Amino acid sequence: MNALSPELPLDLAALRRARGEIGDAVVRTTQWTDDTLSRRVGVPVGLKLENLQRTGSFKIRGATLKIRRLIEAGAVGHGVIAASAGNHAQGVAWAAGLAGLPCTVVMPRGAPLTKIDACRSLGARVELEGDSLEQAAARARDLASSEGLALLHPYDDWDVIAGQASCGLEMLEDAPDTTVAVVPLGGGGLISGVALALKLQNPAIRVVGVQSEAVAPYRRFLEDGSIEEVPSAAHTIADGIRVKRPGKLTRRVIAACVDRIVTVDDNAIAEAMVLLLERTRTIGEGAGVVGLAALMQGKLRLAAGDRVACVISGGNVDMSLVGRSIDYGLASSGRLMSIAVTIADAPGQLLRAIREVAALGMNIRHVEHRRGELHVPVGMTEVILQAETRDFEHQRELLRCFAEQGLRVRNLLAL
Amino acid sequence: MNALSPELPLDLAALRRARGEIGDAVVRTTQWTDDTLSRRVGVPVGLKLENLQRTGSFKIRGATLKIRRLIEAGAVGHGVIAASAGNHAQGVAWAAGLAGLPCTVVMPRGAPLTKIDACRSLGARVELEGDSLEQAAARARDLASSEGLALLHPYDDWDVIAGQASCGLEMLEDAPDTTVAVVPLGGGGLISGVALALKLQNPAIRVVGVQSEAVAPYRRFLEDGSIEEVPSAAHTIADGIRVKRPGKLTRRVIAACVDRIVTVDDNAIAEAMVLLLERTRTIGEGAGVVGLAALMQGKLRLAAGDRVACVISGGNVDMSLVGRSIDYGLASSGRLMSIAVTIADAPGQLLRAIREVAALGMNIRHVEHRRGELHVPVGMTEVILQAETRDFEHQRELLRCFAEQGLRVRNLLAL
Repeated sequence: MNALSPELPLDLAALRRARGEIGDAVVRTTQWTDDTLSRRVGVPVGLKLENLQRTGSFKIRGATLKIRRLIEAGAVGHGVIAASAGNHAQGVAWAAGLAGLPCTVVMPRGAPLTKIDACRSLGARVELEGDSLEQAAARARDLASSEGLALLHPYDDWDVIAGQASCGLEMLEDAPDTTVAVVPLGGGGLISGVALALKLQNPAIRVVGVQSEAVAPYRRFLEDGSIEEVPSAAHTIADGIRVKRPGKLTRRVIAACVDRIVTVDDNAIAEAMVLLLERTRTIGEGAGVVGLAALMQGKLRLAAGDRVACVISGGNVDMSLVGRSIDYGLASSGRLMSIAVTIADAPGQLLRAIREVAALGMNIRHVEHRRGELHVPVGMTEVILQAETRDFEHQRELLRCFAEQGLRVRNLLAL
Repeated sequence: MNALSPELPLDLAALRRARGEIGDAVVRTTQWTDDTLSRRVGVPVGLKLENLQRTGSFKIRGATLKIRRLIEAGAVGHGVIAASAGNHAQGVAWAAGLAGLPCTVVMPRGAPLTKIDACRSLGARVELEGDSLEQAAARARDLASSEGLALLHPYDDWDVIAGQASCGLEMLEDAPDTTVAVVPLGGGGLISGVALALKLQNPAIRVVGVQSEAVAPYRRFLEDGSIEEVPSAAHTIADGIRVKRPGKLTRRVIAACVDRIVTVDDNAIAEAMVLLLERTRTIGEGAGVVGLAALMQGKLRLAAGDRVACVISGGNVDMSLVGRSIDYGLASSGRLMSIAVTIADAPGQLLRAIREVAALGMNIRHVEHRRGELHVPVGMTEVILQAETRDFEHQRELLRCFAEQGLRVRNLLAL
């Protein structure tokens, strides 16, 4: 029986059993400690790097356990099937491959080619269906019953939750003095498992769930039990936790074991991606770094003696998105400046503007000389300047220079 | 006595002793295996991820040993000093900090701000001097003698080589069946240590050094003993191995223990950076991934039974360079297309061109409508199109569409 809530079927022995069944199918990922990061947060911080897990996310933990138990129960039928546009698909494909089971993955038509390829190269049959995950899921249910396949839910399943708990067990072994755990929250499978693993060993540990500001159904759940309606057009770069309908089982665990839920916006997420890259030299996907973003935004009400363990849950992100996120993160942390300067349309004027940029040691990335736009007076011209800068103060130095010369400047990156 | 060459002072026992002295100051980094990568190379490949080493490169191995031995010998004087624009500086600063020794680092004036900051945050005093590493090194020598500091050479030192050898000892423990080791080659400290560690245990292992095509003093060294002159303006994105004057000691080890030296160009290096990111979700710096680049370029004459261990030696790279490298790598692997299409300057013509792009499922990144350029006939206009594509064949499909419509297209990314 679960000591935290008699209604939950998983106790510590069950979680440990689950971990034993998963065995070394999963990598025991590093819990990365970093002095610079800890100094910035104010207390010691360890990052559980599940972005370095096989297939690039924690998902193989739950998928492996579920598939092994289905096999043991003789309940796999003609194979397994999952609907997902992302990490769940890869996790299931990988775990099925390990077990030698046929695997079908149904993805929405818009799924990134790299993720389709990743599933195929793991041996899965990929079906593209519908424009949304909901439509793909409906197709997966149809296929499951018509072809006799076992359908794997991404989070709302006690075996999946018990599998994800192995992540929490590792975290507490690596940092037994953890007082606060920060975990991305989408469907709730990961945080349910991690929270159970931690709280069943030490109920004093505070567990904080982090959602994307734009898609935060759990926003007020712990205060009043409500689930916020998410507009279907809601967009976030944390697409891995863009879950509109939280699970029924995970909701029960979250009510019993999670202490706070906070949100972070896409800006903070992009900055956290860049910070993770700089500090650990690893890529986190948007959903993977929301915990780090919450830490950097000071959303955690930390006290002097706290020790934080923060899960970086995944790293599957399109390379071109990485490039864009780097720019986004550089811009929002003051290291990329993009301005339009109005100068006199006369010889030598562009040189003058650029000389100031060079004098301040900025690296120019893009210059564009425009003329004939309606908002620029005749006789004047507009220069678009993009430069790499040290910080916002560095940018202000340039703006002051231009202001002293009476030049009009528009900030093109103003948010 | 060294069994490979009686002239080399390091034997296997010396390397093991060195490793024991370094102890757990260094991280025992993962040797990452990846099925997709192995399939592409044709034989099993393991990547020794020294980019996840403390301070982001292997350099702390040698620096830690050197500093510990200096302390033991009572030879540190008033602290240690090093000249470097990069990883050596951070390695020495870190190792000195661990030993509680004052550390000075001399960097050329143009050193990236992030690297200066990294050394400062590791507790080092940073002096900026001269425009080149040579000038910084001269200043470091002056300071060493005037202030009584121990000068740490980045590679040409038996203790440093013995320290780097710990990387090779780990590699063979993790993959005892290794037949080929691929190692970045700059000054030669890393490859000397790794080659000794491997060959002294199994002389049949082939060790391949990889240099940047643009800076390859060792190009013909194994054939005729010559060291190629490197033009001082030579540029490569693999700045970490941009070493023009190879070491005296490392040269002896390389002559005795390295089987082949190959080169890769910046294109291949950028592609390898993107591949590393995609497969391992970790960042490698240019110099760090030259081995992977050589593998992908088929420079290694591998046979069916081979098993490759490839060192990814470091991951310290400016974030904005990462963004640029991603674009570069995407472009050179066919996933980013940049063309100029000449269309009639009439309503609906841009729409027509863009419709083709959309029909092929390409994601547009940048569109620019130009008019009035001298190479475009009056009555026509030029559209610059940048789009994300699947591969070169995908790009050719679009070019064929445009050709069928009689549109003139220039490839802006042609190399």
